[in-house]
Amino acid sequence: MRQRHKPWADDFLQEHPDTVISNPVSYRGRWKDVFANDAPIHLEIGTGKGQFIVEMAKQYPNINFIGIEVAKSIIVTAAQKVLVSEQLNIRLLHVDAERLTELFAKDELTKICLNFSDPWPKNRHEKRRLTYYTFLDKYKEVLRPNGEIILKTDNMGLFEYSLASFSQNGMRIEEVNLDLHEADDSTNRMTEYEEKFTAKGQPIYRCRITCNHKGNS
Amino acid sequence: MRQRHKPWADDFLQEHPDTVISNPVSYRGRWKDVFANDAPIHLEIGTGKGQFIVEMAKQYPNINFIGIEVAKSIIVTAAQKVLVSEQLNIRLLHVDAERLTELFAKDELTKICLNFSDPWPKNRHEKRRLTYYTFLDKYKEVLRPNGEIILKTDNMGLFEYSLASFSQNGMRIEEVNLDLHEADDSTNRMTEYEEKFTAKGQPIYRCRITCNHKGNS
Ligand SMILES: C[S@@+](CC[C@H](N)C(=O)[O-])C[C@H]1O[C@@H](n2cnc3c(N)ncnc32)[C@H](O)[C@@H]1O
Ligand SMILES: C[S@@+](CC[C@H](N)C(=O)[O-])C[C@H]1O[C@@H](n2cnc3c(N)ncnc32)[C@H](O)[C@@H]1O
Repeated sequence: MRQRHKPWADDFLQEHPDTVISNPVSYRGRWKDVFANDAPIHLEIGTGKGQFIVEMAKQYPNINFIGIEVAKSIIVTAAQKVLVSEQLNIRLLHVDAERLTELFAKDELTKICLNFSDPWPKNRHEKRRLTYYTFLDKYKEVLRPNGEIILKTDNMGLFEYSLASFSQNGMRIEEVNLDLHEADDSTNRMTEYEEKFTAKGQPIYRCRITCNHKGNS
Repeated sequence: MRQRHKPWADDFLQEHPDTVISNPVSYRGRWKDVFANDAPIHLEIGTGKGQFIVEMAKQYPNINFIGIEVAKSIIVTAAQKVLVSEQLNIRLLHVDAERLTELFAKDELTKICLNFSDPWPKNRHEKRRLTYYTFLDKYKEVLRPNGEIILKTDNMGLFEYSLASFSQNGMRIEEVNLDLHEADDSTNRMTEYEEKFTAKGQPIYRCRITCNHKGNS
């Protein structure tokens, strides 16, 4: 995603420590206290400019949403959307998904959304894909039993890779869509990238995965 | 596949009992005797007019190929191609795939190819799809441990369904291609349907599955 330098970003983040949580590792295992309720927690990795998480939070007020985004100049835009929405069920974390198990305790999450993750098409960058097995191992740890992963992408190579990676790491493919917008799912909320690719007429791929903790890879 | 009535088909089949094997159930567990060697056996289900199996048999002379086709007027065309090819490593069976476990003993096959299987798109016909779990259970029985299933289709709905069905029945997705001809695999041999859909510019989907007999569904 294009990043502009935003000289005010650091100040902005310091002024909004309850929207973009400062020192998020200190809440590991206690995110329900942050939201002050017991609702299920859904995580979006690579939240981008925040359209998806804000729309989902409105649609599902009884679910808590956490968005992780590593790029500072992008997460501030998401944070502005969250503030405007006045939704109380969203928090953003300015961290790398690498650190997932420092951020969340075992079984703390109900769902993980991977939306238009960077495809890293070159073989030598396989390790950076968010569906590389080292990431899947982290997802298994922080997801509760039968927790879900939803992946959406326009990228054929990443989708092909991810289906095989999920299967080979003992996860279960519940549902596959090779043309999401043809499937016409009214509960679907679009991300910024999804709108862009859909407008160009490209198919959007989606899959729903469950994680049964049996480790039958 | 379009079927013309062929009044000569019965006579033809009777005259070629070594190409389209008569009474195939009598060879269950003894197919290596039929081929008079120990080479691995690959099965194609729904062989159609036989282009794929004949090309594969030429390309892999050290593999034995068996094709199953339920339509009499279609299998005679495949049989003619086999006879013309003079390949000794092909046999055809005029039976319904339902009867797979009557035809093959446990672990007798190394690979199963499902090429452009009838999609049966209506929910109430799910049971007829060749990737419905009752069929997958049969494939597991007749495939040797780590045996493979290769599915190719132009049909999006069947492909989406099949990936989920494989995964949910304890099979492992090794590889997914969402546009086989873009992937440019020179070892690929096209079926009649594949040529037709490829000429129209439609993508061909393929996946490679392994079957580990663990039954971890
Ligand atoms: C291609 S953009 C998609 C943004 C948004 N999900 C959408 O669909 O419009 C990918 C986003 O993921 C972020 N990202 C990539 N790797 C990440 C990681 N390891 N941890 C957190 N965020 C990451 C990038 O900074 C970028 O904003
Ligand atoms: C759509 S055609 C594809 C033919 C060929 N594989 C190709 O790709 O050109 C499907 C074929 O499978 C055969 N078939 C369908 N169900 C079958 C079954 N249960 N057992 C054996 N053959 C079957 C049909 O008769 C038909 O010839």
